[in-house]
Amino acid sequence: MKQNGLDEMPPAGATIQEVAKAAGVSKTTVSHVLSGNRPVSAATRRRVEKVMAELDFQPNFFAQALTSKRSNSIALIVQDITNPYYPALARGLQLSVARRGQAVMLFDAGGGEQFADTFVNEAIQRRVDGVVIAASGMASGLARLQKAGIPVVAVGSGLSGLSVDWVSADDERIAGDAVRHLHASGRSRLATIAGPRGAAPGDSRLSGFLDAAASLGIEVLPQHVAVADFTRDGGYEAMERLMGTDSSPDAVFCANDLMAIGAMEAANAAGLDIPSAIAIVGVDDIDAASLVRPALTTVHIPVEEIGQAAGDLLLHRIDEGGGASYRQVLVNHELVVRASA
Amino acid sequence: MKQNGLDEMPPAGATIQEVAKAAGVSKTTVSHVLSGNRPVSAATRRRVEKVMAELDFQPNFFAQALTSKRSNSIALIVQDITNPYYPALARGLQLSVARRGQAVMLFDAGGGEQFADTFVNEAIQRRVDGVVIAASGMASGLARLQKAGIPVVAVGSGLSGLSVDWVSADDERIAGDAVRHLHASGRSRLATIAGPRGAAPGDSRLSGFLDAAASLGIEVLPQHVAVADFTRDGGYEAMERLMGTDSSPDAVFCANDLMAIGAMEAANAAGLDIPSAIAIVGVDDIDAASLVRPALTTVHIPVEEIGQAAGDLLLHRIDEGGGASYRQVLVNHELVVRASA
Repeated sequence: MKQNGLDEMPPAGATIQEVAKAAGVSKTTVSHVLSGNRPVSAATRRRVEKVMAELDFQPNFFAQALTSKRSNSIALIVQDITNPYYPALARGLQLSVARRGQAVMLFDAGGGEQFADTFVNEAIQRRVDGVVIAASGMASGLARLQKAGIPVVAVGSGLSGLSVDWVSADDERIAGDAVRHLHASGRSRLATIAGPRGAAPGDSRLSGFLDAAASLGIEVLPQHVAVADFTRDGGYEAMERLMGTDSSPDAVFCANDLMAIGAMEAANAAGLDIPSAIAIVGVDDIDAASLVRPALTTVHIPVEEIGQAAGDLLLHRIDEGGGASYRQVLVNHELVVRASA
Repeated sequence: MKQNGLDEMPPAGATIQEVAKAAGVSKTTVSHVLSGNRPVSAATRRRVEKVMAELDFQPNFFAQALTSKRSNSIALIVQDITNPYYPALARGLQLSVARRGQAVMLFDAGGGEQFADTFVNEAIQRRVDGVVIAASGMASGLARLQKAGIPVVAVGSGLSGLSVDWVSADDERIAGDAVRHLHASGRSRLATIAGPRGAAPGDSRLSGFLDAAASLGIEVLPQHVAVADFTRDGGYEAMERLMGTDSSPDAVFCANDLMAIGAMEAANAAGLDIPSAIAIVGVDDIDAASLVRPALTTVHIPVEEIGQAAGDLLLHRIDEGGGASYRQVLVNHELVVRASA
């Protein structure tokens, strides 16, 4: 098998033997300085590190990983990297973990076309130092990672029952805030375009919607609960179904902005004025939310902060190991009132 | 130093010794089967692989990497992962390289706040099998990667002079197509909001714009060339400057959609009707382009295809090693006429 060009790589500075000789220590001591696995006196460490710098010693990354059992890589498994939520999450995660020399390995489930579990297997095989998982159907993957002793942080709601570190927006309260805003502005025939059932955050936002409506004495008709797949096209089709019902709604809470934007397009196409004939609220506050006309009223989620919090939890878990109690972080959201509701 | 929980990891199936014993071969032979570095007879390989499966042998990823000199990781260095161009690029790259067991390590330069060169160093240190780089100021990084013998593919224009594999949109022709469309629809006072100078694709799209205007006999006033930073805010401010000039333009070619959307907002805020008072064209065809009102006329770039082409070139380079000629791929674009021009 032909190698990947590394065979022709110029020799990278000194060897570990040369470092050991120049520093007057054994090869094993140099290894310990590199791996940090065994205590080395501060004076010896300083001397070895000085020699490494002088001789332009480049440690072999794989050998180091083999010794230290660390890959200095974090796997990030996301549902759909082309959904603007996930790039912001990736940026926040990198901001957190890069401080500690960790790089982010990205696994994009392609909008669910690939099973997140395949990536979990790959993360285990690659012996990453930790995993952040933000994809649907992640429960079995979480269990497997924990069994393999790999630190993991989950991003997303519906996880409060699990023994795992997680970060989430407060999805039930997000839906509740949207419902209260619609109610306060005089809407009474509420509908929702929910995310896929049986998975977060679709379920949590739907139950938050139904609970808030009930507590305000608003009856939600069964045909006013439409389910879609968090995409713009899905939102468009769900809105067409809602408008085709006998008693059409005067407000729609959409479980994300992409579906809300699709719903706005369907309403426009049907000649319904937004917001006078129908009010529409989204969730996320993606860039496009302020670009559409009328500008979309939505719930802002600080996604980059979620990524940073996930990174911080993961680094903590990597340092402290397994066991102990689990940390669960809910980030704050904010209703952003624009023109659509 | 505390380990990351791997110390408590349950023993992962059989050891390499146990595999060797059960298969009746030496440990070295098992290593050769794993690494593929030395020839092993087909019969022996099959026997060893059968035993590995029976004993649930999990090769040590780091040891394998040390032997094979392969990390099975590709570094992707991007300018700004929150710009929708780059997630699409990442998806295309993963689609290409995952077929060959390669994972994508994402390095986000945070919109240029971090130097791509830092990530180049990290990629070299981590001994990735290859690098795809799509960030400004990448020339020095490319040279360093090539010197280190690491296969690299550049994404972006302005690279035709370099001895490197690259993939790009045809940026001069993109600008030319936009100019010809504006001219054909009766516009004569053309302006442009260019990307940052001294870097691709800002320079190539600007020279394409100027060349096409010149060849159509259109004079472009110096004050009608504004420079911004590919962001929506930058486009907004650049448009304010263009509208403040003595002879205001009747059409603006913006070097990407985000700047075009910012420019549309500035025109709206100034009470200028789009397209009757001023036509606006973008480049990229991001999701938001069809969401804004009026919908943005733009040049569609098949970004996922660019990512796939970059992955294919990189795999080829990894297989074939250095030397030989360089492959340079220009992908096709398409003018998408909507309502803004």
